[in-house]
Amino acid sequence: MDAVGASLSANIHGTSDGEDLGVNGGDPTLGAPQNGQRRNGPLLDHVEGQRFLEEAFQIILEEALRQGVDPKEKVCEWKDPEELRTLLDLQLRDGGESHDQLLQRVRDVVKYSVKTCHPLFFNQLFAGVDYHALAGRFLTETLNTSLYTYEVAPVFVLMEEVVLSQLRSLVGWEEGDGIFCPGGSVSNMYAMNVARYRAFPQVKLQGLWAVPRLAVFTSQEGHYSIYKAASFEGIGLENVFLVNVDERGRMIPEDLDLKIELAKMQGAVPFLVSATSGTTIQGSFDPLDRIADICEKHGLWMHVDAAWGGSVLLSQRHRHLMKGIERVDSVAWNPHKMLLTGLQCSVLLLKDTTNLLKQCHCANAGYLFQQDKFYDVSLDTGDKSVQCGRRVDCLKLWLMWKAVGTQGLEERVDKAFTNTRYLVEEMKKREGFRLVNEPQFVNVCFWFIPPSLRVMEDSEDYRERLAKVAPTIKERMMRKGSMMVGYQPQKGRVNFFRMVVLSPQIRQEEMDFFLDEIESLGRDM
Amino acid sequence: MDAVGASLSANIHGTSDGEDLGVNGGDPTLGAPQNGQRRNGPLLDHVEGQRFLEEAFQIILEEALRQGVDPKEKVCEWKDPEELRTLLDLQLRDGGESHDQLLQRVRDVVKYSVKTCHPLFFNQLFAGVDYHALAGRFLTETLNTSLYTYEVAPVFVLMEEVVLSQLRSLVGWEEGDGIFCPGGSVSNMYAMNVARYRAFPQVKLQGLWAVPRLAVFTSQEGHYSIYKAASFEGIGLENVFLVNVDERGRMIPEDLDLKIELAKMQGAVPFLVSATSGTTIQGSFDPLDRIADICEKHGLWMHVDAAWGGSVLLSQRHRHLMKGIERVDSVAWNPHKMLLTGLQCSVLLLKDTTNLLKQCHCANAGYLFQQDKFYDVSLDTGDKSVQCGRRVDCLKLWLMWKAVGTQGLEERVDKAFTNTRYLVEEMKKREGFRLVNEPQFVNVCFWFIPPSLRVMEDSEDYRERLAKVAPTIKERMMRKGSMMVGYQPQKGRVNFFRMVVLSPQIRQEEMDFFLDEIESLGRDM
Repeated sequence: MDAVGASLSANIHGTSDGEDLGVNGGDPTLGAPQNGQRRNGPLLDHVEGQRFLEEAFQIILEEALRQGVDPKEKVCEWKDPEELRTLLDLQLRDGGESHDQLLQRVRDVVKYSVKTCHPLFFNQLFAGVDYHALAGRFLTETLNTSLYTYEVAPVFVLMEEVVLSQLRSLVGWEEGDGIFCPGGSVSNMYAMNVARYRAFPQVKLQGLWAVPRLAVFTSQEGHYSIYKAASFEGIGLENVFLVNVDERGRMIPEDLDLKIELAKMQGAVPFLVSATSGTTIQGSFDPLDRIADICEKHGLWMHVDAAWGGSVLLSQRHRHLMKGIERVDSVAWNPHKMLLTGLQCSVLLLKDTTNLLKQCHCANAGYLFQQDKFYDVSLDTGDKSVQCGRRVDCLKLWLMWKAVGTQGLEERVDKAFTNTRYLVEEMKKREGFRLVNEPQFVNVCFWFIPPSLRVMEDSEDYRERLAKVAPTIKERMMRKGSMMVGYQPQKGRVNFFRMVVLSPQIRQEEMDFFLDEIESLGRDM
Repeated sequence: MDAVGASLSANIHGTSDGEDLGVNGGDPTLGAPQNGQRRNGPLLDHVEGQRFLEEAFQIILEEALRQGVDPKEKVCEWKDPEELRTLLDLQLRDGGESHDQLLQRVRDVVKYSVKTCHPLFFNQLFAGVDYHALAGRFLTETLNTSLYTYEVAPVFVLMEEVVLSQLRSLVGWEEGDGIFCPGGSVSNMYAMNVARYRAFPQVKLQGLWAVPRLAVFTSQEGHYSIYKAASFEGIGLENVFLVNVDERGRMIPEDLDLKIELAKMQGAVPFLVSATSGTTIQGSFDPLDRIADICEKHGLWMHVDAAWGGSVLLSQRHRHLMKGIERVDSVAWNPHKMLLTGLQCSVLLLKDTTNLLKQCHCANAGYLFQQDKFYDVSLDTGDKSVQCGRRVDCLKLWLMWKAVGTQGLEERVDKAFTNTRYLVEEMKKREGFRLVNEPQFVNVCFWFIPPSLRVMEDSEDYRERLAKVAPTIKERMMRKGSMMVGYQPQKGRVNFFRMVVLSPQIRQEEMDFFLDEIESLGRDM
């Protein structure tokens, strides 16, 4: 390395007579191949770099997008891990690779990745693609800034303010606070910390030893992030009280009341109830209004994990599922799910107008949040976050919203419900499908009963065999690459599929294919 | 909305005789303009969407990148917040906008955003642009998946494994664990939680009430995220013990030993020391070897916040700054800083080989981490995270590394040091510049002493006037758009500039311009 170092040093201390030194070309010595290997000047050639980006973009457009959304193409090109390791040649080496080799890398990454934008991808609570949002994401990546101060992110500080305000107005709040977080789990964590701070501000300084044992409440079907938050924030899993649900997976308010009393009897101090709008598996909506009554009675912070279901607020027809939402203290909502903004786009919305979020999280770092700046430093919102650098997650949502309008977003939500109704009606016409429950939302949970099991009575043997159906069909569809859908057991129920019809790109054809394909893959079982 | 709903319903339940229904065009009724406004079918037209993406890409390439990196263009187009709000028209409305209006939105976002890739952007600990990394980022956004299971992210699960292993080998570990986190602050939080779990696993279940008061140690110049972590995790700010630093900002090991004894005397139980490699302001490196001796003596988890400085591990010439790093338990390192991968790319590396990270964070969610899958479920790494969905942050680093090789990364790091030496030597030749300290790293902290102050003796009045110099020059450079650099006070020191010369794209011209411009902006003060 000494020779290279000397050459660098010579550059810097020597002449500065050219465009060649850095911005347009880099040191020619360094840019040249070494050992016939390194073709990309590490000190960056803008012209060559931009050419690579353009060519990579064309590959992305053609192979990840055009082919990715084509129903005739595979959803995934399954490879077992050992084979995929060999195919990808992931190892990093001393020397660099050529332009063409690198473009081939881009192609390979696309080829072996799951096409989550494919119309037959139903595996997660995200799917599809929105091109305006995607353009916003490319722009976000290119502008490469961090959302902590107005001086480095002027457009995005103001944009985040407007987007949060618009989302709050859908909740029913004319004012309030909020922040974009790296995922719904983190939004839930933030809510837990802010709720704790409101109840016991001394925890920030003195830690949990200064207060009695605390208790948190969520339903048996609430998301596991509430557990993770309680553990991470030092509260402990045992202090998460699980409230019973009804037969359709909704929190039973009377049981919440009982559990709160139980916690108190055990010497714990309740401070937070996390209700769910759109549970992960069944898509259930807890009865917010009745839960709010109980929270008010006990003086508890009411949070709603609407990461999945929050988008129903856009629909005049379906927002009744979240009746009472305006009464709560905080809402977590992920537009990257049903609204197709792309990962990640998660907000925490707060009713609070007293700057609780910032008071709870601030550390007043002098190197970022100088108070003697020449503009209104209340726009330096970074101290509301527990991160330091924070990604710009508002632009993709904003640009998409500008493109389709609130009406367009509403139509997407409504279409997902309509699709779900179609799918459910079709399932009812077919012999092998048995619904776990009538869907409240767009999660369709069902068992496929293969021919050999249709004649059997319910028994332990039957349930054991039924439990193996979903994993087997899943393996077959993955190896074939025909589609992707998730499954899981839940409480007493053996493995069942969870089909999610969230993307507005799904047509009747895809739903019919889905049902046919499940039948076909499970025919011999 | 009923009419629209009925039309949707008719589509779904009616014929399916066309390409028009969704994937290629959407319902023509919905796609048509309504009130002359909405031009973009909310149900997504792939052809039109891809055309928008292509045109947006060309704008990004020309206006954000080609102009963004041009030293003759402005770094920022400063507008006061009220004016910018008006210029941007951020409000979201019921109807959508036209293709051309939306492209203008893209242009406006670029125009008023700070060009962090500009060679005169020195404001943060990130800067510049790497086009291979940027291509990796576009690809990540397009493939839109979440890093929790092999089935939805096969390429990235394996890629993350390799990248983490490569980074660990630079630390000096042949095995271990690790994870990409949403930023260095979160990496530090993870380290604190894992350290706590190793010392007191019962906290996960029972909360902090089950253990004595805990204590954490970092230096007076450690990053504020250690405070935020202690507060968030229920430990409390008062239980963060600040260790004194020497005159160049490095933790004094003897004082650490004293502070540990002090905490014990006060009845607290020490469990974590967070040393810093590359402090935020001065770029100081704590003496890891001597701190490791003390951690061993007391049996404490030693974490290193190397978010900023970690990249020196790539340089044979400079890695001595982190001598002893192989002895520590965990390292936070952000390649998005000195290596130019773009935000965010942050890793937490662990020496542990007992799966502590997963044990500490797991919740075993049945709907994601089914144990009856047909592949090796140890590849479903998502339960190591406290998030649920987790962004793919490894691809950009991997593709860039493939492009320039380990050698190329090393040259970048070395070039930053070389540039720094040049800048410091130039400053010493000029009358108005006074270094706060001789730099250890690429942070150059200095005061600019304007002509009127050069004749003054040190006094309270002098310091008050000096404190106003940096904010005034900063305002002038921002309004002019000529360059961006940060400032802050620190302990007894009044406001000084922190110049960071990290991008390999910086030439001697830019550094000379920087010095000239500071002189010019401060000439009349």
